[in-house]
Amino acid sequence: MNYVLLTAAADRPDALKRALETADELSRRDVAARVVEIDRLGEESIPVDSLVVSLGGDGTFLRAAHFAHRYRSRILPVHLGRIGFLLNVPTEEITQAVVTGLSSTASVERLALAIRVGDDPVSYFALNEVVLERFEAGRMVRVLTYVDDEEYLTYTADSVMVATPTGSTAYNFSAGGPVVDSALDVLILTPVAPHFTIDRSIVVSGERTVRLSVRERPANVVVDGRLLRTLQPNEVLEVTRQSDPVRVVYSSAFELGHRLRTNLREGHA
Amino acid sequence: MNYVLLTAAADRPDALKRALETADELSRRDVAARVVEIDRLGEESIPVDSLVVSLGGDGTFLRAAHFAHRYRSRILPVHLGRIGFLLNVPTEEITQAVVTGLSSTASVERLALAIRVGDDPVSYFALNEVVLERFEAGRMVRVLTYVDDEEYLTYTADSVMVATPTGSTAYNFSAGGPVVDSALDVLILTPVAPHFTIDRSIVVSGERTVRLSVRERPANVVVDGRLLRTLQPNEVLEVTRQSDPVRVVYSSAFELGHRLRTNLREGHA
Amino acid sequence: MNYVLLTAAADRPDALKRALETADELSRRDVAARVVEIDRLGEESIPVDSLVVSLGGDGTFLRAAHFAHRYRSRILPVHLGRIGFLLNVPTEEITQAVVTGLSSTASVERLALAIRVGDDPVSYFALNEVVLERFEAGRMVRVLTYVDDEEYLTYTADSVMVATPTGSTAYNFSAGGPVVDSALDVLILTPVAPHFTIDRSIVVSGERTVRLSVRERPANVVVDGRLLRTLQPNEVLEVTRQSDPVRVVYSSAFELGHRLRTNLREGHA
Amino acid sequence: MNYVLLTAAADRPDALKRALETADELSRRDVAARVVEIDRLGEESIPVDSLVVSLGGDGTFLRAAHFAHRYRSRILPVHLGRIGFLLNVPTEEITQAVVTGLSSTASVERLALAIRVGDDPVSYFALNEVVLERFEAGRMVRVLTYVDDEEYLTYTADSVMVATPTGSTAYNFSAGGPVVDSALDVLILTPVAPHFTIDRSIVVSGERTVRLSVRERPANVVVDGRLLRTLQPNEVLEVTRQSDPVRVVYSSAFELGHRLRTNLREGHA
Repeated sequence: MNYVLLTAAADRPDALKRALETADELSRRDVAARVVEIDRLGEESIPVDSLVVSLGGDGTFLRAAHFAHRYRSRILPVHLGRIGFLLNVPTEEITQAVVTGLSSTASVERLALAIRVGDDPVSYFALNEVVLERFEAGRMVRVLTYVDDEEYLTYTADSVMVATPTGSTAYNFSAGGPVVDSALDVLILTPVAPHFTIDRSIVVSGERTVRLSVRERPANVVVDGRLLRTLQPNEVLEVTRQSDPVRVVYSSAFELGHRLRTNLREGHA
Repeated sequence: MNYVLLTAAADRPDALKRALETADELSRRDVAARVVEIDRLGEESIPVDSLVVSLGGDGTFLRAAHFAHRYRSRILPVHLGRIGFLLNVPTEEITQAVVTGLSSTASVERLALAIRVGDDPVSYFALNEVVLERFEAGRMVRVLTYVDDEEYLTYTADSVMVATPTGSTAYNFSAGGPVVDSALDVLILTPVAPHFTIDRSIVVSGERTVRLSVRERPANVVVDGRLLRTLQPNEVLEVTRQSDPVRVVYSSAFELGHRLRTNLREGHA
Repeated sequence: MNYVLLTAAADRPDALKRALETADELSRRDVAARVVEIDRLGEESIPVDSLVVSLGGDGTFLRAAHFAHRYRSRILPVHLGRIGFLLNVPTEEITQAVVTGLSSTASVERLALAIRVGDDPVSYFALNEVVLERFEAGRMVRVLTYVDDEEYLTYTADSVMVATPTGSTAYNFSAGGPVVDSALDVLILTPVAPHFTIDRSIVVSGERTVRLSVRERPANVVVDGRLLRTLQPNEVLEVTRQSDPVRVVYSSAFELGHRLRTNLREGHA
Repeated sequence: MNYVLLTAAADRPDALKRALETADELSRRDVAARVVEIDRLGEESIPVDSLVVSLGGDGTFLRAAHFAHRYRSRILPVHLGRIGFLLNVPTEEITQAVVTGLSSTASVERLALAIRVGDDPVSYFALNEVVLERFEAGRMVRVLTYVDDEEYLTYTADSVMVATPTGSTAYNFSAGGPVVDSALDVLILTPVAPHFTIDRSIVVSGERTVRLSVRERPANVVVDGRLLRTLQPNEVLEVTRQSDPVRVVYSSAFELGHRLRTNLREGHA
């Protein structure tokens, strides 16, 4: 299938402009391409096996990946750098990456999270991490953790997160967690500012079910950096992997060695 | 001066009961003693050089110490353990500690913070730490730090705190900061979950002035675990030490070696 | 197969005594059992699919596991506590554990390392970790790391280790590395006291080949806590997983949740 | 006094050449200056209140500072960058720094360590740190720590160091210790790879006496990166500050804010 959807944030006019130019270029090559603002993706639908192209930063990528996952389509991330800086990716290069992406179905698979909160009838999606965090100033949360049906540690902390390998270089990294090859099928439990307990991350199989609950005080559930809702002390947050992985069009920039030697060492994920 | 004020939290009836029993015992020994709930201290005043006794946990101690500091009085902390547990400090022992405390003016001095926020006409007090922290889910704050007039690091983080030696075993410890002998005249800068920058604490002289400000997004100012207000991007948070230290009646339980070998190692400050 | 070999360290007469008592008990139940000092295992051989029982601490277990692995046999670890302390595992209980272990072939599989050093014609075995470490006082080593054929980070550090999930709670843990479920098929790269580089652990698939080499100065190769030899700047240390895992007779004491809540939190692996 | 001694390492011919050129320039300005290889300083003596100039890296600076301290003279460090790289400090600039340094007696004072080992009749000097470290592969040392006469923590670790503020950005930093303003009068205890105990650094007053001893196995005493000797289990390592500080000719490059924003963030002390 050759359907292409390009998306960017409304507050990134530079990215939207680049998206429109790329759509133009693609139509000249007889590839059906459309541009949709990231906030409008909720109203959209695309055929299965399309190609979604995100132009912008991490936030845009995470939401576009969610959308692509819903329609069993692939995602091609184009990082344009910070707004205001010169765009360092020319339209021609983006167009070429799309055409190359369409010419094969090759992709790398990345584990995503399926999150159930209390009795909510739906399951939520995360590609980086889900965080259970305090929201009262100066009041840590008390988080109990279970893996399958086995009790793990209880933390008094600012928060406890379950991160994916993709998310291991995001918030998990800031909190001291390990860098995990994004091809691995594992879940990472990492506490933030834990009070007097083991502060190491715990890595378990992606086949496991992780359950978190809070004692005494409620906590916020934050999914890929977006507040979902509050978890009450009598509710459970349940995390498994999505049955389908996210499929990302391969780029050599994804290789962990390359990222470690360039980006990560110099201070950006 | 022999004036004694005992204080405890209203939701700790066990502590209040113990306070009243102690006041009774003291009056039998001709020592003037009164019991005031911690939330009512704002309406109270005491003579300079009194003795304030806090019965309860860390929160009660921090507020009672602030009150004692305002009236240049000494503070005697009595830790009663968690509510619901058997009180492990008998009334007789508390009474004796007070009498011993009154018999001399010996005390240990602990640096406290004087905090100015933006144009606020008043200065705020903290014995443990002041924290500048994010309050939006998933949105780190960008904090610039200055010591005297020199620029230090800029952090993208959950928060950045300035802690005292007394506070070094509290939130600073959870965030990975060093344990600092409480007799030292230093300030400790510690970031929480910093994104790709030096994550070590920075220790500077207590004679220095530390200034924090935020970029782009506002942040919460939290003083000894209590939310003060929001700091806007055009405002400055300024931290110096109080000209007068907090004076705490000495107990061998304060010795750092003792605390390291017992409390800290087993998981409570 | 019902062949049982019990082993303990020569400097643990208590453990050897307990081994002999257990062998006696087993022979009374018509199970062929022999006791061999751990240092003499090199002269021994056993039938494939035997059961090796180690009585003692981690060092004894690691060496007995290596021996069991060589003969495709299972290992049953019995931890007796520190010498001088009362033995907290009665002979009867050990005997019962052996009989239960023999009654089924159930075991948990644990990844072990196959290590090649320079041109050495043999491959070495490790169940916990291999460490490339400095041996000159005050002189860090410079370690280059590769995963498959991709360059990863270069560390200036006291050492760099490749740990298994089994070893994640040993030296890797002391160095700040993550706790990894021992059932996972991954390798963990962890630096010790790295100088100004990413200090997080890196977790990669057990299918990968990790290569380490040194620049300028040689370094010691240490395998499960035992010095193997020195690696010169022109040599390569190559780490893969063993084609056969170590098979350990299952005990509920191995469950990670249990270990986290009891042992790990209180300060022993 | 106007006496100037310039020193550099014998294996840095570029640094020695620059030293000789500077001495020439100085003599033309009627300043008595001599060049001595760093390894020959032991045979030298200089008048009190001279100026010692070290050309090279950290190792050269540490040894030259020790020499300057012995003769109550000031030290002026000139960092020339790595050998083989273009020298980025012209002779003229060095000459000018020396002349400026001579024109006033202004200097910054830095705490140095006085170290006594067992019954050794002499006291040793360190400007960065003294480390008590294991030397057997895979065998951690057990280190007991005391401050004045109070027992602190016992570590099972690769090593335990006592660092100065000057040394806080050297080995202490690699081991996770805090950055401490070099003007402070404190000692920093930092363990390397501690096994299941508090892994935070402990900061105490420079007026304190720190004592370390080992249990079971001996350990190496390493002073500013140089092996001194082995400490036996029945011996004590005692650390106090030197009664006289090291006096360093001031440079704005020493300001901590500057160093944090430039050097430290980019990966060199």
